Amino acid sequence: MKILVLHGPNLNLLGTREPGVYGQTTLPQINAGMLEARAAEADVELRIAQSNHEGVLIDTLHDARGWADAVLINPGAFTHYSYALRDAIAAVGLPTVEVHLSNVHARESFRHASVLAPVCVGQILGFGPLSYLLGLEALLRRQ
Amino acid sequence: MKILVLHGPNLNLLGTREPGVYGQTTLPQINAGMLEARAAEADVELRIAQSNHEGVLIDTLHDARGWADAVLINPGAFTHYSYALRDAIAAVGLPTVEVHLSNVHARESFRHASVLAPVCVGQILGFGPLSYLLGLEALLRRQ
Amino acid sequence: MKILVLHGPNLNLLGTREPGVYGQTTLPQINAGMLEARAAEADVELRIAQSNHEGVLIDTLHDARGWADAVLINPGAFTHYSYALRDAIAAVGLPTVEVHLSNVHARESFRHASVLAPVCVGQILGFGPLSYLLGLEALLRRQ
Amino acid sequence: MKILVLHGPNLNLLGTREPGVYGQTTLPQINAGMLEARAAEADVELRIAQSNHEGVLIDTLHDARGWADAVLINPGAFTHYSYALRDAIAAVGLPTVEVHLSNVHARESFRHASVLAPVCVGQILGFGPLSYLLGLEALLRRQ
Amino acid sequence: MKILVLHGPNLNLLGTREPGVYGQTTLPQINAGMLEARAAEADVELRIAQSNHEGVLIDTLHDARGWADAVLINPGAFTHYSYALRDAIAAVGLPTVEVHLSNVHARESFRHASVLAPVCVGQILGFGPLSYLLGLEALLRRQ
Amino acid sequence: MKILVLHGPNLNLLGTREPGVYGQTTLPQINAGMLEARAAEADVELRIAQSNHEGVLIDTLHDARGWADAVLINPGAFTHYSYALRDAIAAVGLPTVEVHLSNVHARESFRHASVLAPVCVGQILGFGPLSYLLGLEALLRRQ
Amino acid sequence: MKILVLHGPNLNLLGTREPGVYGQTTLPQINAGMLEARAAEADVELRIAQSNHEGVLIDTLHDARGWADAVLINPGAFTHYSYALRDAIAAVGLPTVEVHLSNVHARESFRHASVLAPVCVGQILGFGPLSYLLGLEALLRRQ
Amino acid sequence: MKILVLHGPNLNLLGTREPGVYGQTTLPQINAGMLEARAAEADVELRIAQSNHEGVLIDTLHDARGWADAVLINPGAFTHYSYALRDAIAAVGLPTVEVHLSNVHARESFRHASVLAPVCVGQILGFGPLSYLLGLEALLRRQ
Amino acid sequence: MKILVLHGPNLNLLGTREPGVYGQTTLPQINAGMLEARAAEADVELRIAQSNHEGVLIDTLHDARGWADAVLINPGAFTHYSYALRDAIAAVGLPTVEVHLSNVHARESFRHASVLAPVCVGQILGFGPLSYLLGLEALLRRQ
Amino acid sequence: MKILVLHGPNLNLLGTREPGVYGQTTLPQINAGMLEARAAEADVELRIAQSNHEGVLIDTLHDARGWADAVLINPGAFTHYSYALRDAIAAVGLPTVEVHLSNVHARESFRHASVLAPVCVGQILGFGPLSYLLGLEALLRRQ
Amino acid sequence: MKILVLHGPNLNLLGTREPGVYGQTTLPQINAGMLEARAAEADVELRIAQSNHEGVLIDTLHDARGWADAVLINPGAFTHYSYALRDAIAAVGLPTVEVHLSNVHARESFRHASVLAPVCVGQILGFGPLSYLLGLEALLRRQ
Amino acid sequence: MKILVLHGPNLNLLGTREPGVYGQTTLPQINAGMLEARAAEADVELRIAQSNHEGVLIDTLHDARGWADAVLINPGAFTHYSYALRDAIAAVGLPTVEVHLSNVHARESFRHASVLAPVCVGQILGFGPLSYLLGLEALLRRQ
Repeated sequence: MKILVLHGPNLNLLGTREPGVYGQTTLPQINAGMLEARAAEADVELRIAQSNHEGVLIDTLHDARGWADAVLINPGAFTHYSYALRDAIAAVGLPTVEVHLSNVHARESFRHASVLAPVCVGQILGFGPLSYLLGLEALLRRQ
Repeated sequence: MKILVLHGPNLNLLGTREPGVYGQTTLPQINAGMLEARAAEADVELRIAQSNHEGVLIDTLHDARGWADAVLINPGAFTHYSYALRDAIAAVGLPTVEVHLSNVHARESFRHASVLAPVCVGQILGFGPLSYLLGLEALLRRQ
Repeated sequence: MKILVLHGPNLNLLGTREPGVYGQTTLPQINAGMLEARAAEADVELRIAQSNHEGVLIDTLHDARGWADAVLINPGAFTHYSYALRDAIAAVGLPTVEVHLSNVHARESFRHASVLAPVCVGQILGFGPLSYLLGLEALLRRQ
Repeated sequence: MKILVLHGPNLNLLGTREPGVYGQTTLPQINAGMLEARAAEADVELRIAQSNHEGVLIDTLHDARGWADAVLINPGAFTHYSYALRDAIAAVGLPTVEVHLSNVHARESFRHASVLAPVCVGQILGFGPLSYLLGLEALLRRQ
Repeated sequence: MKILVLHGPNLNLLGTREPGVYGQTTLPQINAGMLEARAAEADVELRIAQSNHEGVLIDTLHDARGWADAVLINPGAFTHYSYALRDAIAAVGLPTVEVHLSNVHARESFRHASVLAPVCVGQILGFGPLSYLLGLEALLRRQ
Repeated sequence: MKILVLHGPNLNLLGTREPGVYGQTTLPQINAGMLEARAAEADVELRIAQSNHEGVLIDTLHDARGWADAVLINPGAFTHYSYALRDAIAAVGLPTVEVHLSNVHARESFRHASVLAPVCVGQILGFGPLSYLLGLEALLRRQ
Repeated sequence: MKILVLHGPNLNLLGTREPGVYGQTTLPQINAGMLEARAAEADVELRIAQSNHEGVLIDTLHDARGWADAVLINPGAFTHYSYALRDAIAAVGLPTVEVHLSNVHARESFRHASVLAPVCVGQILGFGPLSYLLGLEALLRRQ
Repeated sequence: MKILVLHGPNLNLLGTREPGVYGQTTLPQINAGMLEARAAEADVELRIAQSNHEGVLIDTLHDARGWADAVLINPGAFTHYSYALRDAIAAVGLPTVEVHLSNVHARESFRHASVLAPVCVGQILGFGPLSYLLGLEALLRRQ
Repeated sequence: MKILVLHGPNLNLLGTREPGVYGQTTLPQINAGMLEARAAEADVELRIAQSNHEGVLIDTLHDARGWADAVLINPGAFTHYSYALRDAIAAVGLPTVEVHLSNVHARESFRHASVLAPVCVGQILGFGPLSYLLGLEALLRRQ
Repeated sequence: MKILVLHGPNLNLLGTREPGVYGQTTLPQINAGMLEARAAEADVELRIAQSNHEGVLIDTLHDARGWADAVLINPGAFTHYSYALRDAIAAVGLPTVEVHLSNVHARESFRHASVLAPVCVGQILGFGPLSYLLGLEALLRRQ
Repeated sequence: MKILVLHGPNLNLLGTREPGVYGQTTLPQINAGMLEARAAEADVELRIAQSNHEGVLIDTLHDARGWADAVLINPGAFTHYSYALRDAIAAVGLPTVEVHLSNVHARESFRHASVLAPVCVGQILGFGPLSYLLGLEALLRRQ
Repeated sequence: MKILVLHGPNLNLLGTREPGVYGQTTLPQINAGMLEARAAEADVELRIAQSNHEGVLIDTLHDARGWADAVLINPGAFTHYSYALRDAIAAVGLPTVEVHLSNVHARESFRHASVLAPVCVGQILGFGPLSYLLGLEALLRRQ
C-alpha cells in the first residue's frame, strides 16, 4: 500500500507558528517521528509533500494517480475556498482522508467549514498532530 | 482510565436500518467486537449506553462526573439541534470526542453541521464503525 | 392492515387548549369517534399513542417495525426541529403520512415548515380533526 | 353543492409527462374516473378547467363567484410565484383546497413551498392522483 | 396629452373584493367618476384597460408606443414578480407612474416591494382610489 | 385644517446640493412658492420646520399634538433607520404622509426602503418638489 | 396564590458547573434560600421541579393547569429550540415569566435568543440567581 | 431535423427597444436573415414564435411534442421567475438550448440568473443576435 | 448609592400614547410614585432624565461618571440602532440595567432585539411600569 | 488650505475610556499635540469640533461649505448607521477622509463596516491616534 | 487574428477524469482535433495553455497583451472564486469568452455561478467539448 | 528597520491597466520614486516583491521572518478570498499594514471587503499611490 501525504499552506511553519494555538511539534517531527514510524510498522510506503502553492498541491495529486492507493491531506487554509483542490481530489479518484490540527468546525464564522468534505472519505480534526496519525490509521484499517 | 460511550437516537437500529447508508454492522457488534475488545487490550473500562431520549443522554452525562475520565459520543440527529446536550457536555467538563458514521459535513443542507462541535475536543466522521474505534484511539493516545 | 397512529406533544390537551385555534374536539373523540370508527369499517387495526416525549415517540416508532404496515402521525411542534424523529421514520421504513390540524404552511415565520416532510409519503393539513381522517383514508386507499 | 376544479400549467400532459415522477394516470382519468365518479355519488356538481395561462385561471376563479361553493386547485408551478392567483383566491372568497401530486414540501430548494397556502383552507400533497380525491373529500366533509 | 391607464390582476373585482381592505369604490367609479372627470377638465385623453393576463398588459403597453405620452399603472400582484412587465415599461420608454391602493411598503414580508419601481418615474401608494387621482395629477404637472 | 410640514436632515441644502440628482428648486421655494400657495388656496394653515436633528423632529411632532390635524414629512436619510421617528409618528397619532424627492424604492441596496412606512397613511416618491405638492393634495382630499 | 417554578436542563448542576460563568450558588440554595423564603413571606405556595427531559417539563406544565396561578421558568438550553415547550406554555394559558441567569441576548450567535418569548409575559435576564427572585417578584406584583 | 425557436416577452420590440443595450437588429432580421438562412443551409426546418404571454409559450412548447426534435429559446424576463415555463421544458422532454442577447450572469442583482437552466442542455449568452446563431449551431452539431 | 434613570425617545408621552399597548401610567407617575418612593425607602438617590435626543442621552451618561454608581435605562426605539448610545454605556463603565415596558423579544421582525444588550448587566422586559421597579430592585440587590 | 476636523460621539472621553482598547492619549492631546502641530508646520488652518449629537455634526458640516477645503472625520459609532451624516458629506461636496482608531474592518459582526465609506475619498484605520495624523497627511498630499 | 486559449485547473485530466460527467474526449483532442482544425480553416493563430496554477494563468494573460486579439477561457474551478483571474481579464482588456463543459448554472449550490462573468463578453456552457468550438466561433464572428 | 513591501496579483500592470480607475503611476514609479525615496530618508531598508502567485507571496512572507521588522502589503484581489495569505501573515507575526489604491469598502458587492483585515495592524485605502506612502509612514511612526 502506498499513500500520498499532503500538507497545505503555512504548515511548514508548524511548531514555530503560534505555538499556543498549534502546539510545538514541527512538521519534520510529524512526518518522521509519527507518520513514517507507523508506516514502517505497517509496511506501507509514504510520499510526503508540503506546499504553499495551490497549483503544486494539485499537480502532486495528479501525479499520484500512477502510484498511490490513498491520500492523507491537511489542506490548511485551502479548506475554506479551494474548489480547484476539491476538483483535483475528485478527479484522481483516490480515497482521501482530510485532517486538521484544530477543531475547525467549532468556529462558526466560516460559512463552509470545508469545501473539500464532499469529496473526502472522512474527516479527523481537533487532536493536534495526533489527527494525522488517526488519519493514517483510518486509511490502513478501512476496507 | 474509564470512558463513557454514548450512542444517540436511532443508533439501536444500526445494521438493520438503511444498510445501504449505514452498513450492516450492528450496535452490539460495535460495542463488544470493536470497542470492548480494544478497551480490554488497553486496560480501559468502558460503560456504554444508548438512548433515543435527549434527557436520558444528559442524565447519563451528569452521572459520569463521578467516575469517567472521558466521553466518546455519537449524538446522532441531536448533532443538529440539541443545545441541551451541548450544555451538558460543557457542564460535566470531561474531554469528549464526537464521532459520526457518515460524513455529515459533506451535506450542505444543514446549517450547523454540529452544534456540539464547539464543546468537543475533536471530531471523527465518515469511516462507518471504524469512526468509533478511531475516536476511542484518540482518547487513549491524547494527553 | 395495521396502522400506528402517533400524536405528538400537547395534543393530549386538544379541545381544551386554545379552542379558538384548535377547535373543541378532544383527542379521545378523534381517536374513538373518528379513527377507530373508520378503521373498524375498513377492517383495519389501529394502535394509538400520544406523548410529549420525543424519545417515547421514537421508541414507539421503533417498536412498530414488528407489526405495523403504516404510520399516521401528527408531530405537533416536533414538526419544526426533531431531526431525531425524522431519522426514526426513515429508519423504520414504514409508509408514513403527516397530518396537521392547522395550515402550518400558511405561517411564513418558521423557516422549515416541516423537517419531517422529506421522509413522509405526503401531508394533509388545515382541516382540523378531519385532517386525521383524510390521512387514514390516504393510507387505506394508496397502493 | 357546486365545486370548481382547477388544474394549473402543464397538468394537461399528466400521464405522458415524466411518468417516473408523476405516474401514468392521465388528466381525463382523474377528472372522469375519479372526481366525477365521486361527485356523482355525493350529488355534487363539478366544473373542471385546465389552463397553462395564469390569466385564464384567474378569470375562471372570478367567474366562479356566481355559482361555486368551493374550489379544488392544483396550481402546478404557479404554487411558487403567482401572487396574482393568490389574490384571486382571496378575492373570490370561496373555501379553496390546494392539492399536489408530489410532496413539494420535501424539496427544500424552493424558498416558499407555496405562496397560495395562506389563502387556502388546507393542503393535501404527495399522494399522486389520490391527492385530488382526498381534496374533494375534504370539501365534502368539512363544515 | 394622451395617457394609458392600466389596471392589473383582480382589480376588476374592486369594491366587491375584501371591502374592509380595499374599500367600496368600484373600478368603473374610479375610471369614470375620478380619472375621466379630471382628464376632461385637463383636456387629456385617457385610454383605460384592465386585465388579469400579464401578456395582455404587456401587449397593451407595446401598443401604447404609437399614441401615448405617459402611463399610469396599478400593477396589482404583478408588482412583486413580473420582470416581464418591468421590461415592457423600460422598452416602451414612456414616463410611467406606479400607484397602489394600499401601503404595500408597510408590509415587510415581501422581499421586493416592487420590481417595477426601478423603471417608473415615481410611486404613490396608500390612499385608496385617491392614489389613482394623485398619480394622474403627477403626470399632468410634471415636466 | 392645520398641517405640520417636516423636512428632515440635509433638506436645507436643497437646490444647492447635488442639483443633478435633486434639482435646483430650494427649500424656501418649495415652502413658499408651492406649499404655502396651495395651502392659502385651500384655506389651510401650514407650520413648516426643518432640522438635521432627529430629536428636534421628534419634539416638533410631539408639540403638533395640540394643534395639527395632519403631518406631511420628508424624513430624508432618517427614512432608513430612525425607529425613534417612527415611534413618534405612531405616538402622536396624526395622519401622516411620507414624501420623497427621488424614487428611493428604485434602489435595492437599502434593506428597508422606509422604516416609517408602516405608520404612515401613504407614500409619494420620485416626483421631485412635486412630491410635496401631491402629498399636501393627498392630505387635503382624503377623508 | 400558587406558582410553579420550572428549571430546565443542566440547571441541577448549578454551582458546580462552570462557576466562572454561572456563579457558585447551587439550585437548592436558589430554591430554598431565595424563592421559598420570599414565597413564605408573601404567603405564596411554590412547587418546584427540575428536569433534563423536555417531555417531563411539558407534562409538569400540563399538570399545573389544575392548581397553579402562574409559572416561573428558566428553560435553560430549551430556550433556543423547544417549540414543544412553547406550545405547552401557550396551551396551559398561565401567566409565565422567563428568567435566565446570564444575559443571553448579549450573544448574537443564536438566531432566536428565545423561542419562548412570544408566549411569556416578560423576561428577566443577566442577574444570576437574582433573576429568579426578580421573576418571582414580577409575578407577585403584577396585576 | 426540426427545431422550434421561441422568443419570450418584449423580444418583438428588438432593434427599437433600448438600442444602446440590445443593438439595432430587429427580430425579423434575426429570424430570416440569420436563423432561417443557416437552417436552409443545414436542411433543417424551423418554426418560430414570439409571445409576451407565458401561457402561449407553454402551449407552443406542448404542441412541439408532435413534430420538433429540439428547442431554441430566449425566455426574456421569464428567465428569472417562470417555473411554469421550466416545467413545460422538462415535460416535453426535447433538448433545449437557452440563449440571451446580453450577459445576464454579469448582473448579480438577480438571485437566480435563470430558473430554466436546470432543464436546459446549455446556455449561450452575451453575444447579441449572434447568441441565437451559436445556439442553433449547438443544436445542429451536438449528438 | 446614586442611580441615573434615563428614559429614551417618546417615553415622555407615556400614558397618553397608544394606551392599549403601553398602559395608562404616565412618566411622572413612574418617576415619583414608583421609582422615587422605592429609592427613598432604600435611601438611594435618583437623578432622572428623559430626552428624545440621542446626543442628550449620551451627554447625560457622560456626566454621570462623576457621581452615579449605576444606570437604569429604557432606551425606547434607540434599542434597535443606537450604537452611539451603546458605546456611551461601555465608555462610562457603570453597571447598567436595560428595561422595556413591552416584551420586545417577542417580536421577531427586528433583527437585533437590542444593540445595547452586550454592554448591559441584564434586561427586564414585558411588565409595563413594573419593569422599571424590578430594574431598580436589580440594581439595589446585586453585588 | 483649511480643514474641518470632526470627532463623533464618545470621542470626548478618549484616553479615559477603556484605555486597554483605545489607548491613553486624550482628545486634546490629539488635537493640539498632533493635528495642530502638523497643521502649523504645513501652514494649514484647522477648525476642530466634537459632538455626541448627530445633528450638530451635520450642522457643522453644512457650515463648512463656506470656508473649508477638506474634512477629516472620525465618525465613531455613527460609522455604522448614520445615513444622515453620509448624506451631509455627499451634500457639502468637500473631499473627506474617514479615520478610525481601531481596525473596525477586523470585526465581522457589523454588516456594514462603514455606511460613510462610499462618499469618502479614503479610509485610514487601526493606528490609534496616528490614524488622525495619517488622515491629515493624506489631505495635505493628495491632489 | 490571434487567440489565446486558456484551460484552467484539472482540465489536463479531461477524458480520463470522471468520464460519466465530462465525457471521453481528451484535452489534446479538443486542442488539435477541434480548435486548431477550425482555426486553420479560418486562418487564425491559436496559442494554447493549461495550468493548475492560478498565477500561471494570470501571467499568461498578461503576456497576451502584446500579441493576442482575444481570449477563450475555461476557468475550471477558478470560476467560483478567483477574483485575481477576473482582475487579470479586466486588466489586459482583450475580449474574452468564457466556456464550460457542463451546465454550471444548473447547480444552485454555488452562490456565484461565475465571478468572471462580469468581465467576459459572454458565456457558453453545457455542450461538452462543443462549448469550446462555439466559443471560438463566437470570437471569429463577433465584431 | 527593515520592511518587506508586497504587491499582489495584477499590480505589475499598474499605470497601464484601466488608468481611469487606477491612475497612470506605474509600479516602478511607486517603488523607486515614492517608497525607496522615503525609506532612504528614514534610513530604512526596503525589500520589494510583486507576484501574481498566491504561493509566492506566502513563501516571501515566510522568508521575511529572518530579516524583516514589518510588512507593507497591497494584496490586490487576494484581499477577498486568500485565507492562506491571511494565515501566512498571522504565522510570521510581523506587524503588517494593508493598503489599497481604491476605496474597496465603498463597494458593497463583496461580502468580505478584506479577509486579511483581522490579522493586520490597520488599513489605508482610497488614496491611489499615496496609500502606499501613508502605509510606510504608519510603519515608521507607530511604536
